[in-house]
Amino acid sequence: MFHEERTMSAPKTKRGRERRAQILAAAEQMFGARGYADTSVADITRAAGAAQGTLYIYFSGKEEIFSELVREMGRMTRRAMARAVADAPDRLEAERRGLAAFLRFAAERPALYRIVEEARFVDPPAYRAYFTEFAEAYRQSLDKAEAEGSIRPGDNEVRAWMLMGIAKSLGDRFVLWEGGGDLDHVVEAAFDMIRDGLAP
Amino acid sequence: MFHEERTMSAPKTKRGRERRAQILAAAEQMFGARGYADTSVADITRAAGAAQGTLYIYFSGKEEIFSELVREMGRMTRRAMARAVADAPDRLEAERRGLAAFLRFAAERPALYRIVEEARFVDPPAYRAYFTEFAEAYRQSLDKAEAEGSIRPGDNEVRAWMLMGIAKSLGDRFVLWEGGGDLDHVVEAAFDMIRDGLAP
Repeated sequence: MFHEERTMSAPKTKRGRERRAQILAAAEQMFGARGYADTSVADITRAAGAAQGTLYIYFSGKEEIFSELVREMGRMTRRAMARAVADAPDRLEAERRGLAAFLRFAAERPALYRIVEEARFVDPPAYRAYFTEFAEAYRQSLDKAEAEGSIRPGDNEVRAWMLMGIAKSLGDRFVLWEGGGDLDHVVEAAFDMIRDGLAP
Repeated sequence: MFHEERTMSAPKTKRGRERRAQILAAAEQMFGARGYADTSVADITRAAGAAQGTLYIYFSGKEEIFSELVREMGRMTRRAMARAVADAPDRLEAERRGLAAFLRFAAERPALYRIVEEARFVDPPAYRAYFTEFAEAYRQSLDKAEAEGSIRPGDNEVRAWMLMGIAKSLGDRFVLWEGGGDLDHVVEAAFDMIRDGLAP
């Protein structure tokens, strides 16, 4: 349903970029709270304090806004994790820091996390692409670590999907469903199993 | 939305039980293919080859049928996994067999797998209860294994959620999105990480 959408060019003025960002932020809250089907363009423009016509300057409709939020989650997660692992002395420590960064990000942006999961039903090809691209980059990192001897040989595609599944499941339980808990403890307990599962 | 539903008693005749099972099987295919919102009671009865009134003998409406399918997935998964691990010599081998059984079951009943995931949005309390109950039983098995010395000490609640997340993620990638692949290889590759992550 989303594959013939019109993609708008980025706004050229500062005011335009702010307007567009306000609409996205409002949509994130509305989709996150009510879900895709129960959120209308009118809901989003009202929450953004904008006139309905304004939205169509930046987006072709709610489909495009939803897709843009899924892409936003991808960009933000990758950025947060890349930053967290940049100074890690080795891959195992990078796994620990990356997991912590993912859970912190989910705690900061629970609506965005929920939107990505709803994409499984609202836009299945986008959902699949989201995780497949993420897994492919993850696999490459693990291949590099394996070549350097910092993790032992293994099927790094399977491992990438396992590690993503671990992060999502811990995110469900310890962030979305019971926020405010001791995430540091969760990360350490999880890392105990990941480390020995991957160590050379 | 699902919490004041009327729960019907089980049919007393063989014919009644068959009719009810036909309706559930038809609903599983319809919900699995189209999703909850786009499936009506009329769609389900038509697919079951039944008159619309018949459905209301067994179910209060599509909400109850959906909830019953989520419970069915829970019962079937637990049964398939319990059977698979019954003769396992130790907990680690039980993990390997349990993961294999879960992936095989997802391959056999992909519609049911999808219905459970859609429950995250259609019936959030049921979704959360589904995985929380599963995790609690899992934690108890891991606690027992830890007490027996067949896995090393650790936070078995965190481990239970990790292992569930691994199974779901591998199910997405290697069963739902690319069925027919070499599941035995996936299980062995995954078990390599799980074993060393848990071994004493």
